[in-house]
Amino acid sequence: MTLKVGVIGTGMIGQDHVRRITQVLSGADIVAVSDANADVAREVAAGLKEATVHATGQQLIDDPNVDAVIVTSSGPTHEEYVVASIAAGKPVFCEKPLATTTEGCRNIMAAEVAHGSRLVQVGFMRRYDAAYRALKVTIDAGTVGAPLMYYSGHRNPSVPESYTKDMAIVDTAVHDFDVTRWLLGEEFAAIRVIAAKPNSHGGELLDPLLMILETDSGVLVNVETSVNIRYGYDIRGEVVGETGTAALADRGLVVLRSSHHVGGAVPADWRERFIDAYDVELQEWINAVVAGEGASGPSSWDGFAAQVVCDAGVDALHSGERVEIELGDKPALYA
Amino acid sequence: MTLKVGVIGTGMIGQDHVRRITQVLSGADIVAVSDANADVAREVAAGLKEATVHATGQQLIDDPNVDAVIVTSSGPTHEEYVVASIAAGKPVFCEKPLATTTEGCRNIMAAEVAHGSRLVQVGFMRRYDAAYRALKVTIDAGTVGAPLMYYSGHRNPSVPESYTKDMAIVDTAVHDFDVTRWLLGEEFAAIRVIAAKPNSHGGELLDPLLMILETDSGVLVNVETSVNIRYGYDIRGEVVGETGTAALADRGLVVLRSSHHVGGAVPADWRERFIDAYDVELQEWINAVVAGEGASGPSSWDGFAAQVVCDAGVDALHSGERVEIELGDKPALYA
Amino acid sequence: MTLKVGVIGTGMIGQDHVRRITQVLSGADIVAVSDANADVAREVAAGLKEATVHATGQQLIDDPNVDAVIVTSSGPTHEEYVVASIAAGKPVFCEKPLATTTEGCRNIMAAEVAHGSRLVQVGFMRRYDAAYRALKVTIDAGTVGAPLMYYSGHRNPSVPESYTKDMAIVDTAVHDFDVTRWLLGEEFAAIRVIAAKPNSHGGELLDPLLMILETDSGVLVNVETSVNIRYGYDIRGEVVGETGTAALADRGLVVLRSSHHVGGAVPADWRERFIDAYDVELQEWINAVVAGEGASGPSSWDGFAAQVVCDAGVDALHSGERVEIELGDKPALYA
Amino acid sequence: MTLKVGVIGTGMIGQDHVRRITQVLSGADIVAVSDANADVAREVAAGLKEATVHATGQQLIDDPNVDAVIVTSSGPTHEEYVVASIAAGKPVFCEKPLATTTEGCRNIMAAEVAHGSRLVQVGFMRRYDAAYRALKVTIDAGTVGAPLMYYSGHRNPSVPESYTKDMAIVDTAVHDFDVTRWLLGEEFAAIRVIAAKPNSHGGELLDPLLMILETDSGVLVNVETSVNIRYGYDIRGEVVGETGTAALADRGLVVLRSSHHVGGAVPADWRERFIDAYDVELQEWINAVVAGEGASGPSSWDGFAAQVVCDAGVDALHSGERVEIELGDKPALYA
Repeated sequence: MTLKVGVIGTGMIGQDHVRRITQVLSGADIVAVSDANADVAREVAAGLKEATVHATGQQLIDDPNVDAVIVTSSGPTHEEYVVASIAAGKPVFCEKPLATTTEGCRNIMAAEVAHGSRLVQVGFMRRYDAAYRALKVTIDAGTVGAPLMYYSGHRNPSVPESYTKDMAIVDTAVHDFDVTRWLLGEEFAAIRVIAAKPNSHGGELLDPLLMILETDSGVLVNVETSVNIRYGYDIRGEVVGETGTAALADRGLVVLRSSHHVGGAVPADWRERFIDAYDVELQEWINAVVAGEGASGPSSWDGFAAQVVCDAGVDALHSGERVEIELGDKPALYA
Repeated sequence: MTLKVGVIGTGMIGQDHVRRITQVLSGADIVAVSDANADVAREVAAGLKEATVHATGQQLIDDPNVDAVIVTSSGPTHEEYVVASIAAGKPVFCEKPLATTTEGCRNIMAAEVAHGSRLVQVGFMRRYDAAYRALKVTIDAGTVGAPLMYYSGHRNPSVPESYTKDMAIVDTAVHDFDVTRWLLGEEFAAIRVIAAKPNSHGGELLDPLLMILETDSGVLVNVETSVNIRYGYDIRGEVVGETGTAALADRGLVVLRSSHHVGGAVPADWRERFIDAYDVELQEWINAVVAGEGASGPSSWDGFAAQVVCDAGVDALHSGERVEIELGDKPALYA
Repeated sequence: MTLKVGVIGTGMIGQDHVRRITQVLSGADIVAVSDANADVAREVAAGLKEATVHATGQQLIDDPNVDAVIVTSSGPTHEEYVVASIAAGKPVFCEKPLATTTEGCRNIMAAEVAHGSRLVQVGFMRRYDAAYRALKVTIDAGTVGAPLMYYSGHRNPSVPESYTKDMAIVDTAVHDFDVTRWLLGEEFAAIRVIAAKPNSHGGELLDPLLMILETDSGVLVNVETSVNIRYGYDIRGEVVGETGTAALADRGLVVLRSSHHVGGAVPADWRERFIDAYDVELQEWINAVVAGEGASGPSSWDGFAAQVVCDAGVDALHSGERVEIELGDKPALYA
Repeated sequence: MTLKVGVIGTGMIGQDHVRRITQVLSGADIVAVSDANADVAREVAAGLKEATVHATGQQLIDDPNVDAVIVTSSGPTHEEYVVASIAAGKPVFCEKPLATTTEGCRNIMAAEVAHGSRLVQVGFMRRYDAAYRALKVTIDAGTVGAPLMYYSGHRNPSVPESYTKDMAIVDTAVHDFDVTRWLLGEEFAAIRVIAAKPNSHGGELLDPLLMILETDSGVLVNVETSVNIRYGYDIRGEVVGETGTAALADRGLVVLRSSHHVGGAVPADWRERFIDAYDVELQEWINAVVAGEGASGPSSWDGFAAQVVCDAGVDALHSGERVEIELGDKPALYA
């Protein structure tokens, strides 16, 4: 059986998922699209075998031909479409953020809990990256003993003009927050944010930032965001355990000896670094939905937790204080 | 449009391609299977949506519902099925060897030339491996200058009892021959084979073997086969150019610091090392066939050239002499 | 000319310097020794060509045959011997700590300033390590742009029973403090200390510890001490600059491919890691003294600054607060 | 006791050893020098405390104040001075070649055997390099099983105009021959030499060259000389054993992430690569001589064996044939 997918929001990321599902992955087809800009939606549909263009996301969700929904519209619209998908009983894959407020995330969880089973998957693609998965296997196998610290480095060569001070936390470090929660299998309890000497390429931004988080069990987590570091897109991660450490390896495919240097390439951007992870993420979502599981991977709870940590991080950035993180009780659905 | 594929030979590799096309790749379906062991073919078909089981490969080729053929039957049957596919005007993907004799390869080329366009692709999957592709890009960009030497290391932890002396050349090194021809963009002119001190785990085998090849332009190519080396499945490659060198990088995803060592994992077997290459290989074949190109990648000529080099290698192994390699004229179809 | 050196304190480190000067380095001889345990001093002298055993450090300093003094006695005695050496106008190499209190360090500086030229060198041997020197060259060359952050990892496989809570700062991290001041060429302005989840091999210790320091210009410095991490003695360092990063490389001499792993060795202990640095340190001291410079490398000011940072670190550890670091004016002698 | 050393030949290498002994090492002094160019000898002596300038090497050897001799004069004079040193019963350190003919080497061995104990050490400094020593420890420990193959790569950025065709063997690969004999603990039995496609920077030279040697037990040894490869001075070595491999690690001290690359530096020249090895070599020689051992490390037999392999290599280069290597019986003195 082929999963019939509708995509709400056919901008850059939406189009990339359309390409992925129609040209790369197995088991799904795009049968419907919609976008705030109807021309864009029509253009995307024109490149497909047979896809309905809907005037609104709600109509797409209501389309009986649509089995499952992908939400790649702008962040503020996510909550509405995810809740509507749940109301329609349809599996929904939502790019981060799940919602722009913790209140929105709670609304989604309430709807999903009322529905009684998972329907929502959030697009934290790092969990599908081969290197992160190998790192998690290493940790879980006890190879380095119990984790005590984790270093997460998030380095971008540059950011657009539109990038604001808080985005280092809510847009950049949010990935580090999620993947660390997943690697360590526990929640964060507190966060401090300290600005380093500013990079002169960063204008008014506080860049780099150092975030120091504590998990419930006391693991110390360091997140560095350096978003103007020029040399490449470099995602670093090292867990320090009781008896050893394990780190994400560099990814160069070729060792070059040239001009008195020996070494490999650093990825140019997130696309190069995580293209395979996106493929695996969507394929596993398709497989789970086809298998009747509604969703797999990052849940509404994960989207909510990330949002709470981001809010605490922004507070910590502005106040200069250590801010405690309170998630409240986790619904049994997400146990 | 979905490409309707028939698979002749549903043993281990055939089943793997069936899984790949139905569960991983995009754009194709398995509509027919056949196998010397009809029970196996029926079992494989039972796991599919709707696939005809044919009594013979010829019947499968003749099935009007079959758009394209994959030949994964035993080596000695390849020539017959490939020639029949060409006769039927159907694209055919054939696992190596293209044929077990150079005469067989010539017959296939003659049929394809008579047909007037390419229909045959040979399964040399290394050309689709990301690291080899990056190495070729580096060479072609001139980053290390003109290639002067190439080292190719082919290491297996162990081989089955059935592995014979010549197989180090015709079954193992054949991959190194093909990928080196492709990396350097030229043909081999001569080969010597020298046995090293034998590995005590190798029984009567001559293992490791060192093969020294010369290309038409004089590039020296060293191929080492070590097929009982225990430590892992390790494929090495380094081109020595006029101004630098470029080598396949190690593939460990995690850097582990533990017990006074720091480093990464070596793949356990060829499946782990090349699983992604097989996926890319078949997807590109599907894409090419759907686009009406008949084939892409390794051609009948490549299958033929590999066979000639293997024959010369076996001669060199038995005689202890330097054996010249003569390919004859290359048909314009393969220019 | 051969420099005639007297050694006060002939315990483990003192004996190692005696060995170094008599068997490894050029340009100096040991002519006098003394130790709180006279038997030990006599035993060491017995192994030398011709060395006087003095009853006290003061007598050794007063010995007209002694050109220069090495102080390797217990920490609390350093101040007295260093001040006495200055009073005698003799160059003195003092292992860390220069003194156990900042007051003691100030006394030494006052005596040296009164003397009018440098006579004191403090034993911060990391500055003589080839890798740290290469890192400093890289930073100073501007290869990674202005430094914005620095990560310093100090990992020991284990510590003796006698190791107390504060020693992670005053005995372990003190090396990181000094070498970071030297690498960055500036002073520290503040320190925070945060304990991670405790290593179960560390008993009552707070281990690992994370120290976050700020320099005068705002560079953020992370110092991790993990002193029960079992896997080896591993000194890490990475500077994050505006356009790149530079890190201490791993030191394995051999790349081993064995049992599905590829990698190198991690040093077993500080001796293996820094043995060469000690040699270079003492040779450069000998050369400077023979050249009439009195001292080179780490000065009394450096010993003092390290002490102030350690005191602030201990305050920060106990209070949980960010503690500011005040060094006061630097005497012109140390400019 | 201080060893009183006389140096015959005060050109570049002689001066370097003078510097080493007077400024770096322990336990020796330079008391006499001589050189074909008396002005140079006088200039070198002027920089020393107290050194006699002798008109001839023979006079220096006869000087009763000279305990031991270093021969760094031009190659053709080595035999005479080494034999004279033996006749005088004085330990002699001779830079390679021991003699320019195997006949000369035999004469030296005959003299030394007649003397009855070792007095001669040949300057094959690679045996004192930390990485090669770690490699030998690894091999001898059986970590990779019995050695079956060895790859030796000898790469120079460029060579002077005066470099001739045979020098790739007698001047360059001779180091690979010696260090491989030492690593494997056995002699060579045969050699083939094959020229690769010539490097366009190498003029009329055959460069790179591939030499394939067989040891007595059948280990296959590959020596690559690439002496115009521009990118750096890069000495590679990898032993392939029955269960794994071990290789010389790259030597970069700093890992740099910059401009989309991550990696380390390659040495610029042999001096940078082997400076430490020269220090260790001479210090061990001094220690052995002071201890009354006459010599340690590479012996006259090693100098002879290297010469025989070089001669066979030149034969193989010119004839294109596999040339057998015959050393004859090894005198018991060198067992």
